[in-house]
Amino acid sequence: VPDAASLIQQLRALVDDAGFLTDPGRTAPMLRDHRAQYRGHALAVVAPADTAAVSRVLAFCNEHRIGVVPQGGNTGYCGGATPDASSSQLLLSLERLDRVRAIDSANYTITAEAGCILAKLQSAAADADLYLPLSLGAEGSCMLGGNLSTNAGGLNVIRYGMARELVLGLEVVLPDGRVLDVLTGLRKDNTGYDIKSLFLGAEGTLGVITAACLKLYPALRSRATAFVAVRDPAAAVALLTALRGASGDCVSSFELIPRVAVELTSQHIPGVVDPLSAPSAWYVLCEISSSRPDEPLDALLEKTLAAAFDGGLVSDAAVAIDERQRELFWRLRESIPESQRKEGANIKHDISVPVSQVPRFIDVAGRWVEQHIPQGVLCAYGHLGDGNLHFNVNQRAGFTAAQLQAIEPKAKRAIHDFVKEFGGSFSAEHGIGQLKVFELERYANPLELELMQRVKHAFDPNGIMNPGKVLRRP
Amino acid sequence: VPDAASLIQQLRALVDDAGFLTDPGRTAPMLRDHRAQYRGHALAVVAPADTAAVSRVLAFCNEHRIGVVPQGGNTGYCGGATPDASSSQLLLSLERLDRVRAIDSANYTITAEAGCILAKLQSAAADADLYLPLSLGAEGSCMLGGNLSTNAGGLNVIRYGMARELVLGLEVVLPDGRVLDVLTGLRKDNTGYDIKSLFLGAEGTLGVITAACLKLYPALRSRATAFVAVRDPAAAVALLTALRGASGDCVSSFELIPRVAVELTSQHIPGVVDPLSAPSAWYVLCEISSSRPDEPLDALLEKTLAAAFDGGLVSDAAVAIDERQRELFWRLRESIPESQRKEGANIKHDISVPVSQVPRFIDVAGRWVEQHIPQGVLCAYGHLGDGNLHFNVNQRAGFTAAQLQAIEPKAKRAIHDFVKEFGGSFSAEHGIGQLKVFELERYANPLELELMQRVKHAFDPNGIMNPGKVLRRP
Repeated sequence: VPDAASLIQQLRALVDDAGFLTDPGRTAPMLRDHRAQYRGHALAVVAPADTAAVSRVLAFCNEHRIGVVPQGGNTGYCGGATPDASSSQLLLSLERLDRVRAIDSANYTITAEAGCILAKLQSAAADADLYLPLSLGAEGSCMLGGNLSTNAGGLNVIRYGMARELVLGLEVVLPDGRVLDVLTGLRKDNTGYDIKSLFLGAEGTLGVITAACLKLYPALRSRATAFVAVRDPAAAVALLTALRGASGDCVSSFELIPRVAVELTSQHIPGVVDPLSAPSAWYVLCEISSSRPDEPLDALLEKTLAAAFDGGLVSDAAVAIDERQRELFWRLRESIPESQRKEGANIKHDISVPVSQVPRFIDVAGRWVEQHIPQGVLCAYGHLGDGNLHFNVNQRAGFTAAQLQAIEPKAKRAIHDFVKEFGGSFSAEHGIGQLKVFELERYANPLELELMQRVKHAFDPNGIMNPGKVLRRP
Repeated sequence: VPDAASLIQQLRALVDDAGFLTDPGRTAPMLRDHRAQYRGHALAVVAPADTAAVSRVLAFCNEHRIGVVPQGGNTGYCGGATPDASSSQLLLSLERLDRVRAIDSANYTITAEAGCILAKLQSAAADADLYLPLSLGAEGSCMLGGNLSTNAGGLNVIRYGMARELVLGLEVVLPDGRVLDVLTGLRKDNTGYDIKSLFLGAEGTLGVITAACLKLYPALRSRATAFVAVRDPAAAVALLTALRGASGDCVSSFELIPRVAVELTSQHIPGVVDPLSAPSAWYVLCEISSSRPDEPLDALLEKTLAAAFDGGLVSDAAVAIDERQRELFWRLRESIPESQRKEGANIKHDISVPVSQVPRFIDVAGRWVEQHIPQGVLCAYGHLGDGNLHFNVNQRAGFTAAQLQAIEPKAKRAIHDFVKEFGGSFSAEHGIGQLKVFELERYANPLELELMQRVKHAFDPNGIMNPGKVLRRP
C-alpha cells in the first residue's frame, strides 16, 4: 500500500501546476461548507484544467480506492461538497472547467462546463437573446456542476421545472475514469433507459458531471410583479389557480411570505419597507412574464387581482410600477434568510407537499410549533407554486440561541413526520449531502432506498465517489 | 421443474376468473403487434384486476423464472409488447387497471392506473377544467402504462415535453413482486437518485408500472392554427424561432410537411384538400394556444406570418377561420401515415437531430435517398419543433413493394449513420422494443449501454422482465 505522500506525489503528476492547490488561503474555504457547519481535511485538493485531467484523476483514485469529493461553487446547504476529517479523501474542484462550449440559438440550447458560474451562463444566454431560467440566490457564485448534481430548484420552478428538467445532454466522468459523452441537444431520444437522469441530483456519488447541454427559452420582454396581501394560505392557492389560467400559464414565480418575514426584513435589511399600508398575516409575491414584447401584463395581473379582491381572497395589492419597485419587492423576498440570521438563531426545514396541501400543512404543523416551541416563532415562506416551503422557526425575543437549538432535534422529527403524513418531501430542493443521510434512511420508501443502493453499487462498485453522501457507506 | 400445465394451473389461481384469458378471440390480437410484424405464443395470458394481483403474478414468475411481457393498448411500433415464439412467457395485460384514482385540481395532478386509455384521461382532466397535454395518434386505444413505459412523444412535446416530463409519481411492481409506491404529487423532491425516471421509457424491462401521478395544466381556451407554405426547411426553423418569441412561447405544435404528403393525403384521404392555391415544396402546420379566454391569437399568428412573408420565409399561409378548417388542417397532418399505406410500401425511420440541424440533415440524407433509392420517394415529415422527423421512403409508382423492401437494410443503415453523424437519435419517440435492439447495440454510446445493462441486472437479476426487449438477453 503506497503511503499518503506517495499518493499525493502521483496525484500532482496527473494535473498541471495550476491544478494542484496547496496554499491554505485557497484550500481552507474549500474544506468547509459555506455555512461553516462542516469542516474536513483532504489528502489533496486538485482543480483539473479539463475533462481529460478529471478522467486521469478518477482512474487513479479508483485504482487506489481514494474517496473523491467533487466541488463546484461550494454553496450547498447540506455539506455535500465537504470531505470528511480523515485526510484520506481527494477534494476535486471543477472550477477550472469554466468554458461555454456552444450556444445553438435555433436549437435553444447552451453547452457549458461544470465550473461555469450560473450567472455567467445566464448572461451568455441573454447575449444570444435567449433565456436560461435556472435562477437562485447563490447564482453569482454557484456553479453549473453543483446545480445539476443537486438538481437545483430556485425561483422559476413553477414555470420551467427543476434543473433536471432543463438538461438535454451530459458529459460525465465515471468512477473508473471513463468519460460518458452523451452531450446531445436532442428534445426526443427514446433509446433505452434514462441513464442521464441518475447523475442529476446524485450529488457526485455516481460520477462527476463535467459538462451539460441545457434548454434555453425565448428572452423575456414583458413582466408584471405584484406584492399581494392574501386572506390566508388557502386564498394564496386559489389565487395561484386563477392566475395560472388567466395569464396563459405564464406565472414564473409565486412566493408565499408571512407577516413575520415582512417585519424582519423591514427591520434588518436597509431599503426594505412594507409595500402595503395595513398589515396582513400572509402575502404573495407573484410574477408573470412573457417573451412577447408588447404584452399588457400589468393590466392582466391587476384584473386578476381585482377579481380575487372581489372574491375575498385578496385584501390589498401593489403591482410594481417600475423596475425599482420590482426590485424592492424581490429584495424583501430574497433577504428573508439574511434577516433571519440577523434576528438570531433559527431551525430550518426545506420541505414540500402537494400545492393543494400547503394550507392544511401550515395549519397543522404551525399549531405544533406554537404549542411546543415557546422559544421560537414560525417563519414559513417559500415557493408556494411548487408546494415548497422553508418552514423555519426563528429565535423569539427573550430567549437564547441555545434555548432554541435545544429543541431542534425534536422539532425536526415532528415537522418531518408531518411532512410524511402529508405525502411530502423532507428535502425539496437542498438535497441530502451529509446533513440528511439519516433523514433519508428514516423517511425514504425502503424499496426506493434499496434501489438507490443497487444503483450506487452498479455505478461505483469501489465506493470512491463522494463516500457517505446521500447514502451511508456500506 | 414443474411442467407448463402445472405452472398455468398455479397462475390461474393467482388471478380472478376474469383475469385468466383463454378465448383465442380475445388473446390472438394480444399475441401480435398492431402492425402484424410480430407474432408470439404465450404460456398464458393474464389480466389482473389490481396492483395486488400484479404483485402476486410477478412474485410467482420471478420464483419460477417465467418471462413476463407487459401489455397496455398494444399500439407500439417496435414489438415491445409481443411475447416470443417459445410459449414460455406470460403475457400480462394491464387493461383492467383502469381507474382514475384522483384528480387534485389545486395541485394540477391526476393519479390514474396503467390500463386507462389515454383519451379517457384527457376527458377526465377536461371535466375538471384542466388539460392533460399528452396527445398522439393512438390516444383512443393506447394506455397510460404503455405511454409511460415507452416515454411517448406526440403532438405537444415542443411545449409540454415527453411523457416522462409529465410524471410526478409512480407505482411500480418490481420483478420480485414487491410494490414500489412513490405515487407522490410533488413538484420538488430532492431526496436521492431519480429512480422513477428509470422505469419511464424502460418498456417494461425493469418492472411493471401500475399507476402514475401526472402533471396537468390550465384548460386551453384560445387557439390559432395555420397551414403555411415555407421556402424550405431552414425557413421553417426560422419561423419557429420567430413564433416562439412572438407568441410568448405558446407554440403547442409545429409540424413540417413536404409537398408529397399533401399530394398523397389529397389523393387517398376523403375530405383532405390542399389548403393553399399554389403548390410549395414544404409546409408547416403550426398551432399556438393559451388558457386565456380572450386571447387574440389569430391576429398574433397572422402578424408573425406577415413578417415572415416580408422576410421571404413564407410564400403563402392560411389561418384556420373556424373549428372545421382547423380540423381539416389536422386531418391532413394526421392521415399522412394512412395515405402512405394506401400508396404502397414504405421504409420508416423515426429519427431526431437538433432542431438547428434538421435542414442540413434533410438535405444530406435526402440527397442520398434520391441517388440510391430510385424505386422510392422521400416523405420526410413530423415534429420539427422537437427535431423529430418521420424520415420515410415511399414506394414509387412503377416499382413493386418487393423492389422497395429489397433496399430497406441498406437504407436504414445509411439513414441511421447520417443520424449519428448529426448527433441525433435513431429512435426519437417509438422506442426500441424488439425491432431496434441491434440498432441500439450499434448506435448507443457503448458506455451508456454498459450502464443500462448494469441497471437491468441490478433491478431484474433473474431477467424475467420483458426478456430481449431494449437489451439483448445475456
